Amino acid sequence: MARTYRVVIGVMGASQCDEEIYQLARRVGALIAERGAVLLCGGRGGVMEAAARGAKEAGGLTIGILPGMNAGETPPNPYIDVAIFTGLRDGRNWINICASDAIIAIAGGYGTLSEIALALKVGKPVVLLRSWELPPREHAPLYEAQTPEQAVEMAFQLISPSVA
Amino acid sequence: MARTYRVVIGVMGASQCDEEIYQLARRVGALIAERGAVLLCGGRGGVMEAAARGAKEAGGLTIGILPGMNAGETPPNPYIDVAIFTGLRDGRNWINICASDAIIAIAGGYGTLSEIALALKVGKPVVLLRSWELPPREHAPLYEAQTPEQAVEMAFQLISPSVA
Amino acid sequence: MARTYRVVIGVMGASQCDEEIYQLARRVGALIAERGAVLLCGGRGGVMEAAARGAKEAGGLTIGILPGMNAGETPPNPYIDVAIFTGLRDGRNWINICASDAIIAIAGGYGTLSEIALALKVGKPVVLLRSWELPPREHAPLYEAQTPEQAVEMAFQLISPSVA
Amino acid sequence: MARTYRVVIGVMGASQCDEEIYQLARRVGALIAERGAVLLCGGRGGVMEAAARGAKEAGGLTIGILPGMNAGETPPNPYIDVAIFTGLRDGRNWINICASDAIIAIAGGYGTLSEIALALKVGKPVVLLRSWELPPREHAPLYEAQTPEQAVEMAFQLISPSVA
Repeated sequence: MARTYRVVIGVMGASQCDEEIYQLARRVGALIAERGAVLLCGGRGGVMEAAARGAKEAGGLTIGILPGMNAGETPPNPYIDVAIFTGLRDGRNWINICASDAIIAIAGGYGTLSEIALALKVGKPVVLLRSWELPPREHAPLYEAQTPEQAVEMAFQLISPSVA
Repeated sequence: MARTYRVVIGVMGASQCDEEIYQLARRVGALIAERGAVLLCGGRGGVMEAAARGAKEAGGLTIGILPGMNAGETPPNPYIDVAIFTGLRDGRNWINICASDAIIAIAGGYGTLSEIALALKVGKPVVLLRSWELPPREHAPLYEAQTPEQAVEMAFQLISPSVA
Repeated sequence: MARTYRVVIGVMGASQCDEEIYQLARRVGALIAERGAVLLCGGRGGVMEAAARGAKEAGGLTIGILPGMNAGETPPNPYIDVAIFTGLRDGRNWINICASDAIIAIAGGYGTLSEIALALKVGKPVVLLRSWELPPREHAPLYEAQTPEQAVEMAFQLISPSVA
Repeated sequence: MARTYRVVIGVMGASQCDEEIYQLARRVGALIAERGAVLLCGGRGGVMEAAARGAKEAGGLTIGILPGMNAGETPPNPYIDVAIFTGLRDGRNWINICASDAIIAIAGGYGTLSEIALALKVGKPVVLLRSWELPPREHAPLYEAQTPEQAVEMAFQLISPSVA
């Protein structure tokens, strides 16, 4: 049966980042939107803001999965269209993974590492861009990209069998 | 500061319902979309499907918060635009509440009752339409509507202070 | 195959209560411990404290499922042996239900109502003691007790088939 | 104020492991119990079973945080005293971290890596024993042990300020 709901690409990264990483994430967000997918992220600053901003600027739809139970606790960045408050704190990283068809991890700290690991635990494709270096393990759908263009291309390639 | 993300109205109800309730939920979904809000629901059949269908037919955006960790476990109904798989089972009811500005409960079983209760626990407005009858408690933002039009009007009235 | 892990009875109720309810909950906790079961509760004050206190005074083991992610956010009451911090806020009510073989709801507010509803949603036995009055529904394992003795007796009766 | 609830050490590792790792985990569990702490784990096989077994054999108390919502979905290993079913799937890894004062990661796959990362995200001490090698980051409370004795000694040292 044809899939009726939209493709969702998650972009994971830290809530603070330098200008270079910010621009990479913004470009990744734009490319995701241009290909018609929904941009999902953790809804906060840094890489999450940059990716959402890029997607919005390209006319896309952006979803933020927030740790707090309301905007008073964790305000969404200004580029989020739909804020899914969870009240789960960092436990929401699990939702980021379940709700994305594939994830692109950009730089990132331990929160991002937890998302990479949870994704691989359940067999969801992960594309790394200037992110954690992990020892290779057999059968893990873990790939490394050098550019935003390559990262987004890889993400779409990886999910195509499951969403065709 | 002006709120930048969209208003979300959650419609809660059982995964199975009779034709009359289905048409009420469909109308509620349509009215929510016509007023420009996002329709959020549990993503499955019955009242959830009807509300999402009504919203889609009115040109709106629909979000489904699914209990399973993927579509194999809990397929979204065909009117869901963005499927947020959670892997939390009925624990996802908590997300439904946190992510909605107000909820409209239509008929419903124990799952719906848990959502009404969780909403009131955190002070989120609840409008009942042919749903559970609960003994009144002081200060609880719990209201009863007689028609879809009244339910949606109440929901928007109740959230207006917090989203203006 | 014989079950190897211990029977767990959850006592649900509000974080504040009057003296009469406190003493009922304390007695319920004591009776649970005397029958050799583990007492599980939300770990906070009021009914949760009273039930844990009763169980401790009777030599039992007490588990508190806390909403915060650490004791700074939500300190356990002094009668909790093992504090399971969750960081899920009221989403932890779902854990209370999954982790209990049966629940006894004593008085209580909307949080307690959400726990009653979640339990019935997944078919877990609920015994009410001076708690919410709900309209009867077929096949729901929902019972009302008049005394702590009756409540605990009912809870053990209801779970016996599944733990024998 | 003196802490009233028990110290909990979490042992994280994969649900399958070889005999050497099994014996290391069993020894870690025994040492944790001998020092009077509660052994917490994910409740399943492999490293989780070994650690719980060691703790039980040493007379300790064992808690399993299970991914399923009941024993039918995810049966606890035979050395678990109290099974906390969560219905959160791998989202329960977040609970493992919040509920432990420190964690000892033994070998492990991506699930274990997610737990190491979540712990470091919230500043909880992590001791590695034959586990993931991660690039060092400033201020991360991440330590590597060579033996079960050293691992348990480190874990108790790391938590002593917060539980004294």
